[in-house]
Amino acid sequence: MKCRRCKAPAVIDVRRHNAAFCSDCFLHHCREQVRRAIHEFSMFGPEDRILVAVSGGKDSLALWHLLGALGYSADGLYIGLGIGGYSEESEVRTRAFATEHGLALQVISLPEDHGYDVETAAQRTRRSPCGACGLSKRHLFNRAALDGGYDVVATGHNLDDEAAVLLGNTLRWETDYLARQHPALPAGRGFARKIKPLYRLGEREMAAYCVLEKIDYQVDECPMAAGNRHLGYKETLNELERRSPGSKAAFLFGFLDRMLPLLDPAAHAEAADVHPCTECGEPTTGDVCAFCRLRERAATA
Amino acid sequence: MKCRRCKAPAVIDVRRHNAAFCSDCFLHHCREQVRRAIHEFSMFGPEDRILVAVSGGKDSLALWHLLGALGYSADGLYIGLGIGGYSEESEVRTRAFATEHGLALQVISLPEDHGYDVETAAQRTRRSPCGACGLSKRHLFNRAALDGGYDVVATGHNLDDEAAVLLGNTLRWETDYLARQHPALPAGRGFARKIKPLYRLGEREMAAYCVLEKIDYQVDECPMAAGNRHLGYKETLNELERRSPGSKAAFLFGFLDRMLPLLDPAAHAEAADVHPCTECGEPTTGDVCAFCRLRERAATA
Repeated sequence: MKCRRCKAPAVIDVRRHNAAFCSDCFLHHCREQVRRAIHEFSMFGPEDRILVAVSGGKDSLALWHLLGALGYSADGLYIGLGIGGYSEESEVRTRAFATEHGLALQVISLPEDHGYDVETAAQRTRRSPCGACGLSKRHLFNRAALDGGYDVVATGHNLDDEAAVLLGNTLRWETDYLARQHPALPAGRGFARKIKPLYRLGEREMAAYCVLEKIDYQVDECPMAAGNRHLGYKETLNELERRSPGSKAAFLFGFLDRMLPLLDPAAHAEAADVHPCTECGEPTTGDVCAFCRLRERAATA
Repeated sequence: MKCRRCKAPAVIDVRRHNAAFCSDCFLHHCREQVRRAIHEFSMFGPEDRILVAVSGGKDSLALWHLLGALGYSADGLYIGLGIGGYSEESEVRTRAFATEHGLALQVISLPEDHGYDVETAAQRTRRSPCGACGLSKRHLFNRAALDGGYDVVATGHNLDDEAAVLLGNTLRWETDYLARQHPALPAGRGFARKIKPLYRLGEREMAAYCVLEKIDYQVDECPMAAGNRHLGYKETLNELERRSPGSKAAFLFGFLDRMLPLLDPAAHAEAADVHPCTECGEPTTGDVCAFCRLRERAATA
């Protein structure tokens, strides 16, 4: 197996591209995919300040690394979720990465700064742990971006993540969620722009990137996520990919090319009835936003 | 397990509806689903003449039976595909059903009337057998409807069929195919209306309907279809259904409710550049339609 670009011995094959790469050319391939993602969706301009949502896992650390490798400067934000040893190890790796690369990192702790952890919040609000976690992270990343004067929040969602979310939303034809499944969600009243520069790279590619760049990441999956529906959709897509390589990317990219434009009106209609939360000022359709309601119930007693 | 409607002992459960039925109430349930399908999509009016595409399998025989049970009169058309014993047995069962119920049946034979069978057509045109078969059937059903003065061609596509086709088209975001995946495709220049009155009933329900109504159908699957992509999509959906009952129906019905309206413009744009085939007069975008080209190549030599 030879590298498609330079004919040296290959170290990784990317079946979707029907190609294999040596180490250097694979890293080049990853950078090119991110460059292309940023360019195709005009994710940010030269003046924009970028905040990377970092979890300590392969995707977010690789994203932070890749933005640097492409010459962009970005600060990081880590949110400690209070999930025992898993959270502790994730934070250690995140801090070590920031120190090693001389990057600015802000750390927020759900238990220390907001008085609850994900498991408690899930139990007390009868949400799934992933639901409580996602709500908390979306809110806190957005608030940190606005407070810190950042224009853009970048997250490490990769091709596998995005395709799995797309499959879930498609199986239920949640047209309002589908309309917002955009690699670059524009800023709105009270919302920073949100971008997903890794949407062209698969899970396996991100793990290989970290190994080849010697990035020490949290390998364990979050123990709260086991058996959730998102992982089921990933399995389904992996099975389809085994039967027909390239189908996962065709699913996501075909959606972005041909379906998202048809959904645009739905995306715009949705921003209509929003006003500031009476507690935190974040936009909400009710009086108090979902995050403040969750924190109220999770941190009490 | 008791019947949801009359509390008698149940003979079948329909997990999607979280219900079980006795024999009579199950048959009532099937008729109601078809009645609702016909009504919701205004499939035909009292004056319309209906031609049912009959294969001898459970779905098309049940459809023919159900239309009669609902008081509609419909003639049948069987197309012999020349697939050895499978085709022979299918024809025997179709003829027996028509005779038993005093229904008018027209029979066309691909080998005798058009000089080819499905397997030869597939080999000589380098199509899949299912591709060659589908093309032949669509053309011949439509022509028979127009020649015979029928307004509507009714096919036995059930919920499982429609959901599997939808999954395939969705995974590739074939927006033009998606726009035409309608339970009642309106008539166009040179095309009869096409309706799918069974789209609300699953495969298992159709088999049970035949058993309870003592309809003797061809139980074997077509030997040419083994391993095709459509069956793979059915497996995928069955797996999703096992994990989350009702997801198959939610996928298909959600599409019809919320996505099909967004795709309407694509459906209309598509009818633009069509004119009569120089051989058979059927609408085509080229000079000679795909069926006449297939027959020319398959029947020669």
